[in-house]
Amino acid sequence: MGKGRVTIPTDESFVEGTKEIARLWGADAVRDCDGTELPQNVTELADKVYNTYFVVRGDNAWAKAHPEETHRTFLMSGRTLAEGDTVRIEVARGYLPEQIVPDWENIGYWQVFDRTAERETKEWSADEKSGCVTVKDAQPYHEYTVNFMAKVVWHPVQIYNYLTNHWTCEKQKMYDPAFPHTAKYIERHMEEWCVQHPETNVVRFTTFLYQFSLIFNEKGKEKYVDWFGYGLSASPALLSAFEKEYGYALCSEDFVRAGNYNSPFRNSDKKFLDWMDFVQRKVSSTVKGLVDIVHAHGKEAMMFLGDDWIGAEPYGKYFKDMDLDAVVGSVGGGVTVRMLSEIPHVRYREGRFLPYFFPDTFFEGNEENAVAELNRNWTTARRALLRKPFDRMGFGGYLSLAAKFPKFVRRAGEICEEFRGIVETANQGKPYSGLTVAILNAWGSLRSWQSHMVAHELWYQQIYSYQGILEALSGLAVDVKFISFDDVLQRGIDKDIDVIINVGDAYTAFSGGEYWADEKLTEAVRAWVHEGHGFIGVGEPAACRKGGRFFQLADVMGVDKELGFTLSEDKYNIEKKEHFITADVKGEIDYGEGMKNVYALDGADVLDITFSDRFRRNVNVGEVKLAANGYGRGRGVYIAGLPYSAQNARILYRAMFWAAHKEDEMYRAFSSNEQVECSYYPDCDSYALVNNSARKQTTVFYDRNGQKREIEIGAGAILNL
Amino acid sequence: MGKGRVTIPTDESFVEGTKEIARLWGADAVRDCDGTELPQNVTELADKVYNTYFVVRGDNAWAKAHPEETHRTFLMSGRTLAEGDTVRIEVARGYLPEQIVPDWENIGYWQVFDRTAERETKEWSADEKSGCVTVKDAQPYHEYTVNFMAKVVWHPVQIYNYLTNHWTCEKQKMYDPAFPHTAKYIERHMEEWCVQHPETNVVRFTTFLYQFSLIFNEKGKEKYVDWFGYGLSASPALLSAFEKEYGYALCSEDFVRAGNYNSPFRNSDKKFLDWMDFVQRKVSSTVKGLVDIVHAHGKEAMMFLGDDWIGAEPYGKYFKDMDLDAVVGSVGGGVTVRMLSEIPHVRYREGRFLPYFFPDTFFEGNEENAVAELNRNWTTARRALLRKPFDRMGFGGYLSLAAKFPKFVRRAGEICEEFRGIVETANQGKPYSGLTVAILNAWGSLRSWQSHMVAHELWYQQIYSYQGILEALSGLAVDVKFISFDDVLQRGIDKDIDVIINVGDAYTAFSGGEYWADEKLTEAVRAWVHEGHGFIGVGEPAACRKGGRFFQLADVMGVDKELGFTLSEDKYNIEKKEHFITADVKGEIDYGEGMKNVYALDGADVLDITFSDRFRRNVNVGEVKLAANGYGRGRGVYIAGLPYSAQNARILYRAMFWAAHKEDEMYRAFSSNEQVECSYYPDCDSYALVNNSARKQTTVFYDRNGQKREIEIGAGAILNL
Repeated sequence: MGKGRVTIPTDESFVEGTKEIARLWGADAVRDCDGTELPQNVTELADKVYNTYFVVRGDNAWAKAHPEETHRTFLMSGRTLAEGDTVRIEVARGYLPEQIVPDWENIGYWQVFDRTAERETKEWSADEKSGCVTVKDAQPYHEYTVNFMAKVVWHPVQIYNYLTNHWTCEKQKMYDPAFPHTAKYIERHMEEWCVQHPETNVVRFTTFLYQFSLIFNEKGKEKYVDWFGYGLSASPALLSAFEKEYGYALCSEDFVRAGNYNSPFRNSDKKFLDWMDFVQRKVSSTVKGLVDIVHAHGKEAMMFLGDDWIGAEPYGKYFKDMDLDAVVGSVGGGVTVRMLSEIPHVRYREGRFLPYFFPDTFFEGNEENAVAELNRNWTTARRALLRKPFDRMGFGGYLSLAAKFPKFVRRAGEICEEFRGIVETANQGKPYSGLTVAILNAWGSLRSWQSHMVAHELWYQQIYSYQGILEALSGLAVDVKFISFDDVLQRGIDKDIDVIINVGDAYTAFSGGEYWADEKLTEAVRAWVHEGHGFIGVGEPAACRKGGRFFQLADVMGVDKELGFTLSEDKYNIEKKEHFITADVKGEIDYGEGMKNVYALDGADVLDITFSDRFRRNVNVGEVKLAANGYGRGRGVYIAGLPYSAQNARILYRAMFWAAHKEDEMYRAFSSNEQVECSYYPDCDSYALVNNSARKQTTVFYDRNGQKREIEIGAGAILNL
Repeated sequence: MGKGRVTIPTDESFVEGTKEIARLWGADAVRDCDGTELPQNVTELADKVYNTYFVVRGDNAWAKAHPEETHRTFLMSGRTLAEGDTVRIEVARGYLPEQIVPDWENIGYWQVFDRTAERETKEWSADEKSGCVTVKDAQPYHEYTVNFMAKVVWHPVQIYNYLTNHWTCEKQKMYDPAFPHTAKYIERHMEEWCVQHPETNVVRFTTFLYQFSLIFNEKGKEKYVDWFGYGLSASPALLSAFEKEYGYALCSEDFVRAGNYNSPFRNSDKKFLDWMDFVQRKVSSTVKGLVDIVHAHGKEAMMFLGDDWIGAEPYGKYFKDMDLDAVVGSVGGGVTVRMLSEIPHVRYREGRFLPYFFPDTFFEGNEENAVAELNRNWTTARRALLRKPFDRMGFGGYLSLAAKFPKFVRRAGEICEEFRGIVETANQGKPYSGLTVAILNAWGSLRSWQSHMVAHELWYQQIYSYQGILEALSGLAVDVKFISFDDVLQRGIDKDIDVIINVGDAYTAFSGGEYWADEKLTEAVRAWVHEGHGFIGVGEPAACRKGGRFFQLADVMGVDKELGFTLSEDKYNIEKKEHFITADVKGEIDYGEGMKNVYALDGADVLDITFSDRFRRNVNVGEVKLAANGYGRGRGVYIAGLPYSAQNARILYRAMFWAAHKEDEMYRAFSSNEQVECSYYPDCDSYALVNNSARKQTTVFYDRNGQKREIEIGAGAILNL
């Protein structure tokens, strides 16, 4: 049994148990957990002690002394129909009064919109007593909304815990260091805290200055959540500073844009991108001040990837300036592994595995389920770790609960050991990649491994068919880049890229929408493919109605989507063909939500097509789900959707090699059985074969030269060759 | 057995048989059929003789003498990728050379477009010998197309018959009376023909001047079909006349608009609406000249609704000016019945029933199938006939084939008798309607009973879920109007309308698209509903992204569609409720293609919602299929799609009465069993109860006062009470 790379939770009531589990798992660090205190003699338990630190909450005395320095946000009132020529809008109706208080002092920021006409009106007055705005000269039967600035008077993450777990403690207020008093206060507090916590080696920042958007409704249920949302950064202090620096002011409608909040699913305008850049710089410089204090005390600064992480994007331009030592985040699957493990500019990254040691899982009689969840989490994460591991792993919750499940303790120990082995191998050098693949969207590298997320790790019906592409990629033997449309327009396409993937619903920032109205983009991608590269489109790729096409790269992929405007044109290309891409497919392919009304252009190869049962099979009723198309010396592929599964990961792998015109290259460091994946580490000339399934598997293993042999591999096992 | 109202086909080889069947069916008219000649003594066979007449084809000698007067059309070449700075486009590639010949003499009409940039280029030259256009200064990796004028040198409908039935006769050329010689010729020919056909009572025009769009590909298969298409009216003679009259010229791109041909699924621009109006006037006045000749010879003029019917729209403004006596068309179901039976300004309308007496159905051993097809066609048509019958029915094909099937002859005789009974009853007065319902789309009354058709009566996957609304309406006890967005904007909503229905895919002319960007329209419909009327939206009703909404009447219907921009907003309204609208539903509702990503707003009643099997049921995965919503004193309903079935017709019926706030009124002249429908004729105080199913049914019959009693009704039977 090795030691190190593992962090476990502890608390004052479980000192001896912590020591025992630390031994069994080889843990070298301990951390506290929500609602617990570290033991007095905590430094005896492990080499390192992590301690949670809040920057903008936790000191209600300060908050109460400076209520004007609380966080703000721009919110939109409910849509209110004008039934006559005046309309009265209760601005905060539908919001949780304990979280959201209209900021009447900052009413200068408020705006009123006729959303039916998409027009601002200035003809309104506000009444603080009733909480209402009254619009005069309203247009009957138009809907009006008020964009109001609100004070955020209860920390959103605490609200969640509070309401979920029926807490009764004092409600944590917030304070924003964009304001002068709090700016000084947070440095003073950091200094004092460091002095008061000599036992702490690692300050676990949870997190920095601006919480992601998390707004509750009048019933205390989540009303709005955007893990990437900048809404709570809308501070009057920051807005003024922005105006001074940029020479123009933002208004509420730059946040509540045309009646929908900005979100990563929308293409941003220049102003909001300016704001994001500004907030990132402000956060970075403020956090740097705190980190300097931490370092001065000989401690490390670790960022928790979540909560108040807005402006501290690890793939952002100013992340490195914060001088952080580490990042920790939770692991939901391969995508979150890579999101963590590829974070640059820190010395180490840590992943927190599931399940949490909480009573909802660790109750009597539930040991098998706890072990199963552990295995499931580990298996989905492991294939990504083999491509690029983070440096440390850990768990959260109450260790005393886990300790009651001996099977769980044993299995977790095995996993810790397997994890250390993976990290040691990977540390010898980068694994072999057959291709370099780029995900192309509006965000590019800023949101590496973060596309198609709403609330962190929650599944939505509208995203899993696309998120599956990233999940598949997280464990496939390809290098993955994230590039933006602006990158392509301004700098062209990097020489090392073999295949570009564009995935998402029409007009979202992920497929690109209006970006594709710029023919320079279409031109650039077409030229690049035509010269011998690959393009894979998923869902409604490059969709933007123009020139009689919906998919602007219809010619590249060999498919377009019927919107009703070309129903009169007969579509005869409905014969399904066998193909390299689908050579391993058994049974039906799972396209997730799929995509309706896609048809093949002449000359494309239809690899999969469905026909409505209600008709005889004919040209008017086929829907293409998978197609491949030659385009000059290059190739295009279309896929309707691709949730993650072993079979789908294999389809994507084949599609990428086919698109890149490198079919033969696929059979290097390759496993014929899609349940088994292979990583090859050239620097130590070793292979890791990993069985992602819960059954024993037989596979034909191809080494880096394409030499093959049959191999048997146990359920969930990893083989080093 | 009665007599009259029935037309049968005949030919010179089946004179005695014709007499016998005329007696059995009570037929009073005979007609010829493609490829047959009328018998010498045809006037002995029936009271009336119909004879097919072609205006713009059939005289190849004339056509050959005046090749410059053939029909023209604007076509778009294939999209051709510029790989360098010149691109060569073979304009007619992919078209059938025997139909389509590029019109090099009229090259002044040609245009070349960079479809990638949506920009016309003038830098091109054409070479007749190679059939190519060469574009200079092309933008590499842009797609170019040529809009070219083409001569149509083979009549499209004959091509279809020719290629389908392997005909070898001479190919029928065409001639366009917009040109001076043909203009005179067609009048002269009409006169001569009338003189030569004294036996003919009814000139069955098949049809007039401009064929609907029907273009074939290089393999002789249909390439493009639009039953409403004005493409073949694009004659240089008409284009010049148009310019003189309107003071501005149309160009090819007014037909090939932004790379897609105009079709009824697209909103038209003002210029194309001008063109349609112009062609309708030209056709009307030209046809009037022919009809005058026909009348001068004591004959009747009957229009076949199809083939060269463009510009002669029966619901158009100039239809009445043609002074026609009758229209005949084929019957595919209830919609086509009403399309025929409501045609104004003629003395009678005739419907041709299925099956045709052709060898594909009338072969030995297939009698049961022939009878089944007859019954199916009759049953779907009958419920519409009960609402509004046409005046005559008929059959087509070779009567000698039908005569070999005695069961078929007997059943057809019964149907003829039933038909006469229905017409007699209806002639006593209009049946009772519980409501007046308006279909709202871009076309309004011009395309009454013609929405969501591509090729006449062919089913497409993208239309049946919407066309089902019309099919249901065709037999329901409501008055149906067709109104356009312009009607609403210019004249408001008629006082008698209870419920407006808007149905179709986003941005099509049927749901409206850009029309809904005009807040005046939204405002007008909202106000009208709010004041106490009903609105039913189906599919993507009132869809047009604006002001943060996709459905501009989201507030009226209580639902909107998630496009990805509001995923961050939690949607809790997922509880299915019992409701008046779904009170009769058994099992699952069939929504056809359904609609993805529709969610309910707060306050709406969700009547049906689906959850993806792959998730636990939660707020992020529900899709609303049916919803009902109060809106002021009015009501809105949303339906994802509604293919025709007895159950769906009932759902629609209930939805209309609910939306109109007249639930109680529904129980007048009503049948509780959805397989049985009731029509009430106040003028003769009689009820027709019709069993649309092939089984005996029991139903509770409600009379006009709501008095009820149980009734049993035989399979497919009609009961007069």
